Amino acid sequence: MTTRTALIIGAGADTGSAIARAFAKEGYHVCVTRRPRNMQQLGVLAGAIRAFGGAATPFGVDARNDTDMAALVEQIESTIGPIEVCVFNIGANVRFEIGDTTPRVFKKVWEMACYAGFLTAHNVLPRMAGRGRGTFIFTGATASLRGGAGFGAFASAKAGLRNLAQSAAREYGPRNVHVAHVVVDGMIDSRFIRENVPSVDSLRARDRILNPDHIAQNYVHLHRQHRDAWTFELDLRPYGETW
Amino acid sequence: MTTRTALIIGAGADTGSAIARAFAKEGYHVCVTRRPRNMQQLGVLAGAIRAFGGAATPFGVDARNDTDMAALVEQIESTIGPIEVCVFNIGANVRFEIGDTTPRVFKKVWEMACYAGFLTAHNVLPRMAGRGRGTFIFTGATASLRGGAGFGAFASAKAGLRNLAQSAAREYGPRNVHVAHVVVDGMIDSRFIRENVPSVDSLRARDRILNPDHIAQNYVHLHRQHRDAWTFELDLRPYGETW
Amino acid sequence: MTTRTALIIGAGADTGSAIARAFAKEGYHVCVTRRPRNMQQLGVLAGAIRAFGGAATPFGVDARNDTDMAALVEQIESTIGPIEVCVFNIGANVRFEIGDTTPRVFKKVWEMACYAGFLTAHNVLPRMAGRGRGTFIFTGATASLRGGAGFGAFASAKAGLRNLAQSAAREYGPRNVHVAHVVVDGMIDSRFIRENVPSVDSLRARDRILNPDHIAQNYVHLHRQHRDAWTFELDLRPYGETW
Amino acid sequence: MTTRTALIIGAGADTGSAIARAFAKEGYHVCVTRRPRNMQQLGVLAGAIRAFGGAATPFGVDARNDTDMAALVEQIESTIGPIEVCVFNIGANVRFEIGDTTPRVFKKVWEMACYAGFLTAHNVLPRMAGRGRGTFIFTGATASLRGGAGFGAFASAKAGLRNLAQSAAREYGPRNVHVAHVVVDGMIDSRFIRENVPSVDSLRARDRILNPDHIAQNYVHLHRQHRDAWTFELDLRPYGETW
Repeated sequence: MTTRTALIIGAGADTGSAIARAFAKEGYHVCVTRRPRNMQQLGVLAGAIRAFGGAATPFGVDARNDTDMAALVEQIESTIGPIEVCVFNIGANVRFEIGDTTPRVFKKVWEMACYAGFLTAHNVLPRMAGRGRGTFIFTGATASLRGGAGFGAFASAKAGLRNLAQSAAREYGPRNVHVAHVVVDGMIDSRFIRENVPSVDSLRARDRILNPDHIAQNYVHLHRQHRDAWTFELDLRPYGETW
Repeated sequence: MTTRTALIIGAGADTGSAIARAFAKEGYHVCVTRRPRNMQQLGVLAGAIRAFGGAATPFGVDARNDTDMAALVEQIESTIGPIEVCVFNIGANVRFEIGDTTPRVFKKVWEMACYAGFLTAHNVLPRMAGRGRGTFIFTGATASLRGGAGFGAFASAKAGLRNLAQSAAREYGPRNVHVAHVVVDGMIDSRFIRENVPSVDSLRARDRILNPDHIAQNYVHLHRQHRDAWTFELDLRPYGETW
Repeated sequence: MTTRTALIIGAGADTGSAIARAFAKEGYHVCVTRRPRNMQQLGVLAGAIRAFGGAATPFGVDARNDTDMAALVEQIESTIGPIEVCVFNIGANVRFEIGDTTPRVFKKVWEMACYAGFLTAHNVLPRMAGRGRGTFIFTGATASLRGGAGFGAFASAKAGLRNLAQSAAREYGPRNVHVAHVVVDGMIDSRFIRENVPSVDSLRARDRILNPDHIAQNYVHLHRQHRDAWTFELDLRPYGETW
Repeated sequence: MTTRTALIIGAGADTGSAIARAFAKEGYHVCVTRRPRNMQQLGVLAGAIRAFGGAATPFGVDARNDTDMAALVEQIESTIGPIEVCVFNIGANVRFEIGDTTPRVFKKVWEMACYAGFLTAHNVLPRMAGRGRGTFIFTGATASLRGGAGFGAFASAKAGLRNLAQSAAREYGPRNVHVAHVVVDGMIDSRFIRENVPSVDSLRARDRILNPDHIAQNYVHLHRQHRDAWTFELDLRPYGETW
C-alpha cells in the first residue's frame, strides 16, 4: 500500500506552511523543505501537522543544489511514497534598481525563485508522468506578469518561472500531470509583513491582506479539479486591492 | 427573511444549466433565463432543479433589451430576493472571415455576447454594491484573449466582455462585490457538439472534452473564496488540450 | 495609371490629421473622413495638405452606417484609386462607472470605436486582399489592453477593436495585407487636452505629451516595413509616462 | 569631440551583424562583441563595416562574466566614446523537454539569454541615465511571451529577459533612456537555418523568412523615435507566419 505523498518546496512560516497543513488535512504525508538552517522551524511545522493527526516529514535542503534535489526526490519516493502533489513556493523578493542590483544578487534571486523551481520540476515531473498522475503547482506573483521599477531581479526570475510552468503544462498535461501557476497579487499576512508593516492589524481586520490559509484552499481546489477542466493559472488578491 | 437568490443569464442546455443546478444545490433560488422561444426547455431545467429539492424560476427574456433587463432584475429583487450571485453565460459563436461577416451578424454577435453582459452588469452590480455583497461571474472563451482567423465577430465581442469584466472588478471589488471571468478553453460536452462532432463519445471517454458540471464546480469555488483572496480570472481546459 | 490612395477614417483635428498629412507627404492621395457636421474642419485639413502640394479629398460620413461606408469605399475606389493604406482612427472616450453608463452610451461608444472599425475593415480588406496589396492600421489605446475603473464602455469597445484587428491580421496577412494595431498610451497634444489640461504647455515643453506628428511617423514606418518583417502591434508613450 | 558609439552584444553572423551594419551606416562607431573564439568572424564583420566607410571595433568577450563585462564597458567609454546605443542580442535556443533538460543546460541557457542581458544593462544603463541620453534594445522571441513544449529553458530565460527589460524601461525611461524589446517571431535567414532547413531558398523567394537587414531597420527606427512617442515593444514576423 502506497502513502499518498505531497512535497512542498519552500515551506516557509506562512504560505508554505499553510499549503502543507492544507494537504496534510487532505490526507497527504507532506514532505516539507526549507534551507538546513531553518530545520527547527520546519520541525515546529511538522509537529503542528502531527498534532492534528497529519503526517509530515521535514527536510533541510538547499533547493538550488541539483544533486541535493535529485537525492531528496529519490529519498522521498523510496522511503515515503510516490509524490502525487508538488508545490514550488520559494520566493526571493529584493528591491533595487538595475544599476544597484549586484550580479551576485541578480543570480541569487534567480537561483532561488526560478532555478530551484526548474530543479524541482526536472526531478518530479517525469516521475509523475511515468505514473500518469500528479499535480504540480508553482507559486507566482504580480511580478511574474510584468517588470516594475525596482523589481528587475525579482520580476525577471518570476517571469522565468512562469514560462517554465507554461512549458511544463504543455509537456506534461497530456500525460495527466496537472501543472498550474498561482499569481498571488498583494500583501500576504506573513511574519515579514507583520514585522514591517505597521498597519497590518487594520488591514487584517478589513480582509485587505491575503490570509495564507485562504491561499492554500485554492491550491487544494486546483488539485481536486477534474482533468477535463483543469486550470493553468489563477490570480488571488484581496477584494480592495488596486491592480 | 430573505431568499438567497442567484441569476443565471443564458441558462442554456449545457453549461448554463449545470451552473444553475450547482448554485441550486448550494441553496440558492436560481432564476434562469433564456430567450422567450426556449421557455419550454427552461421549464424542464427548473423542474429538474425542483426534483432534487432546489428552487428555480424560469424567465423568458431577450437579454439584449435594456428595458426588459431592467424589469427582470427589478422583478426578481422585489418578488424573489436580492441577487447574491449573478452569472452571465451567453455565447454567440459564428465563424466567418471579416469580409464575409455581414454588419448584421457582427452586431448581433456583439449584442448577445457583450452588450447583454453589460446590461446584466449595469442592472445588477450597483444593487450588489449597495448591499456590499455579491458575486458576478462572466463566462469567457479562448477568443476572449485573442483574435483568430474566422473569429473576428466572436473574438471582438468576447474581448469586449472581458475588458468590461476587468473594469467591473476594479470598480465594484472595493465595495465587496466579487467580479470574475472564467476562460473556458476547449470543446464543451454540449448538445451542439454531440450533434456535430462524431468523435464526442471517444473524447468524453478520455476526459478530453469539458464536462459542464465540472465547469460549474469552479463557479461555485469562485463564489466561496474568502474576500482576502479573490480570483479575477481562471482558465479551464481538458488535460490533453493544445493551447 | 492609378492614383496611390490612402483612406483615413476619423481624421480628427489632431492624430487623424497628422496621419493624413504624413501619408500625403508620402505621395498618397488621402481621403479623409469625419462626421458630416465636421466637414468644414475637414476642408481646412484638405486645404492644408494641398497647400504643401499634396492631394486630399474630404468626405463627411457617419462611419457607423454600413451602407454609407460601403458606398464611400466604392466611391473612392471608382473615382480616386485603389485604397493602398487605410487607417481607422475613431476614438470615443467617456468616463463613467458601469452603473452610471447608460445602455445608450455603452452602445454608442462601441459603435464609434469598434463597429465603425469593423465596417471599415469589412469593406476595405477584401479589396486589398484581392489586389494582394495594402496596409490597414487600427489606432488603439491603453484601454485596448485592459479595463480600468471608469472605463467600462471605452475599454470594452477598444478591446473589441483589438481582437478584431488580430483576427484581421491572421486572415489577411497571408494575402499580403499588413494589418497593424498601434497602442497609444498617454495624453495626446490635442485640442481637447489643450482646452482641458492646464499643464499642457509645461508637458509639451518637456516632451511629456504625445505629439500627433510623431505618432504619425510610426504609421508610415509600419507601412514601409518589408513584408518579411511586419509588426502587428507597437505601443507609443512619452518617455516619462508611468505604465 | 565625442565619438557617437554603439555597442552590440552578440554580433552574430546574421541579426547581430545586420544591426551593427545598420548603426554604422547611421554614423555610429559600432563596438561588436562575440565570444573570444569567434574573434575571426568578428574581424570580418568589422572589416565589412570599414569597407563602406563605417567605424567598428571587435571585442571578444564572454558576456556572462561580470568583471569582463564591467571592464568592456569601461574600456569602450574611456577609449572610444560614450555608449549611445546598446543592443543585447544573444540567443541560446535549445529544445528539450524539462525532464531531459540537464541542470547545466538550463543554467547555461539562462546565463547567455538572460544573465548576460542583465550584466549589459547593469553596466550600461546607469551611464546612459547619468548623461540623460541613450537607447537600449533587447532582442526577444516568441518564447519571450509564452512557454511551449520543448522550450522550457529557452522560454524561461527569454521571459526573464523581457521582464528585466520592462523593469529597465520603467526605471530609466524617465531619465531619458529609451529601453525597448523587439519580439522576433519566426525563422530568421541565418546560417543555422540555411544549413538546416532545406526549403530556405523557397521561403526566401516568397519573403516568408525574416531578413536580418529588415529586422535591423526596426532597431534604427526605435532609436530615431522622438521621446514623446517611444515604443517599448514591437513584434516582427513574416507576412505569411501563423501566430
